[in-house]
Amino acid sequence: MVISIDSPLDMHLHLRDMDMLDIVAPLSAETFAGGLVMPNLVPPVTTKEAVCDYRNRICRAQGDHCFTPYMTLFFRSDYRPEFLESVKDEILAIKLYPAGITTNSEGGVSGFDLEELSPVLGVMSDLGIPLCVHGETGGFVMDREAEFIPIYEMLAQNFPDLKIVMEHITTKEAVAALDRYDNLFATITLHHLYITLDDVAGGLLQPHLFCKPIAKRPEDRSALLNVALGAHPKVMFGSDSAPHPRDKKEAPGCAAGVFTAPIALQGLAQLFDRHGALENLQAFVSDNAQRIYGITPPAKKVVLEKTPYLVPEIYEGSVVPMFAGQSLAWRVVSAG
Amino acid sequence: MVISIDSPLDMHLHLRDMDMLDIVAPLSAETFAGGLVMPNLVPPVTTKEAVCDYRNRICRAQGDHCFTPYMTLFFRSDYRPEFLESVKDEILAIKLYPAGITTNSEGGVSGFDLEELSPVLGVMSDLGIPLCVHGETGGFVMDREAEFIPIYEMLAQNFPDLKIVMEHITTKEAVAALDRYDNLFATITLHHLYITLDDVAGGLLQPHLFCKPIAKRPEDRSALLNVALGAHPKVMFGSDSAPHPRDKKEAPGCAAGVFTAPIALQGLAQLFDRHGALENLQAFVSDNAQRIYGITPPAKKVVLEKTPYLVPEIYEGSVVPMFAGQSLAWRVVSAG
Repeated sequence: MVISIDSPLDMHLHLRDMDMLDIVAPLSAETFAGGLVMPNLVPPVTTKEAVCDYRNRICRAQGDHCFTPYMTLFFRSDYRPEFLESVKDEILAIKLYPAGITTNSEGGVSGFDLEELSPVLGVMSDLGIPLCVHGETGGFVMDREAEFIPIYEMLAQNFPDLKIVMEHITTKEAVAALDRYDNLFATITLHHLYITLDDVAGGLLQPHLFCKPIAKRPEDRSALLNVALGAHPKVMFGSDSAPHPRDKKEAPGCAAGVFTAPIALQGLAQLFDRHGALENLQAFVSDNAQRIYGITPPAKKVVLEKTPYLVPEIYEGSVVPMFAGQSLAWRVVSAG
Repeated sequence: MVISIDSPLDMHLHLRDMDMLDIVAPLSAETFAGGLVMPNLVPPVTTKEAVCDYRNRICRAQGDHCFTPYMTLFFRSDYRPEFLESVKDEILAIKLYPAGITTNSEGGVSGFDLEELSPVLGVMSDLGIPLCVHGETGGFVMDREAEFIPIYEMLAQNFPDLKIVMEHITTKEAVAALDRYDNLFATITLHHLYITLDDVAGGLLQPHLFCKPIAKRPEDRSALLNVALGAHPKVMFGSDSAPHPRDKKEAPGCAAGVFTAPIALQGLAQLFDRHGALENLQAFVSDNAQRIYGITPPAKKVVLEKTPYLVPEIYEGSVVPMFAGQSLAWRVVSAG
């Protein structure tokens, strides 16, 4: 069996920088037509120059593959309107992190004071710049996303023309919120469609499946599967592929993140096929994002066939992917 | 400030075997007067000869310290009455594991068919041998203990004269069950009094705090603290100290277990002191167990003082303790 996907998009992607960028950028660029690149570098991407420089480094690193890095800016509540005006053509969205909630988010937002956030959000709304949000409170790890829903609702209500993307949602509560506001959208990762906390810590502990937001309960995964497999029009694929060097993953104080970029399309094909939903994969992995963000990615046809694919144990001796050493039921035949 | 504890007891202890036994047995024996030693070796302890041989190996390994290893047998539903009669003076309890639920539990019980379990439980009840249970179902990791409560209740109802110890309880549901049946008792670990899932996976992932049952929610820890600090008469200290070599803890497929034996008394003193409950420590860590199990441990006075104690990073280059490299507020001054 063979399927082809037109211009697959990964709408939540960590490409990192330096050596890691050189390893992972070609792996995303090989099978995707574009990706929304997260700005949580050290220091975070907060200037036009940083955006452009980072884009240039990505383009150098990705090699000859046809791939558009859609850039983001790290949300700051003190951005000036003229700055946002000047940078808007260089970015596709602005990413808001609560301070300290995940890797390199220390400079994020503390508290969600509407008065403090309103000036920038108002300008973003006027300029049509979507807001991407890592929606977790500082509460108990299994409750953080559900506790954040009222903040999503407050933002959605106060800025009805602002497109707000709930990033990497993991709970039935976030899925339910999707349909309550026209301007709420969501990305869903590959790993949250496959795993629950049981896969991370139910048997032996699996650090390569440890991520933020942490994988939740079976009923949460069911809710995510329901909207992803059904290609709910407000839901997009975003891998949140988050590479860390193996020695940072396999040690006490293991960093959060699952590395899925090179196996994401194969993993999605396997999942959608298992559930008899292959006809919805195109919408989930490209069409919905094109419509929601109003983008036209480069034409790129990716052909997959149902043939076992052995996932590498590690890439470049450094980064361990999800499904390392395991066999997936689908492989990429060609992309171009 | 100085306190002294008479004959502290650790009523749930993994001493392992071979090299690991040689490392950890002296560390428990140094500050405890006795401990209930779990039988999940490979192969599990299921014969009188295995019980006696294991006790001899423990006594050799513990050195000159005054310490009584109270032995357990690994529950099997096919034990004959005459075997139980012959072994009863060598053991203090029989430990029941659901199959595959934790380290070396593969030979445990599958399903909880009362008809299958009744012959052995009936004889245990007649002979006055307590039943210790690792109470978890095979369900979602956060629900396993709460889901097991009906099985505890079924056992408690059907064998009202059998003392049943809910081992290493972690949930408010288990705490609530304690008071519903006269013959239900419980052990509580040090680590479950200190940590929740947040400490394991809420920030960076901490494999040395990964254990089974997994640490639960803040309200569960509060319920445990309530009965431990209050020295509820049916609750005993059981460390569930479960050493694994560092390379098994700091790798993908990390084994479950927190190693607390050498710092347990210090950690308990700090905790009870912080909560103004030092006067209840004696009951929690010795008197309750003496009364519940009907044992008289060797006389041993352990003196602790409120002086900072730096916990070693590792023991014998192999086993990493809880609080490794951190300072505890209490240290052991003398034991003997």
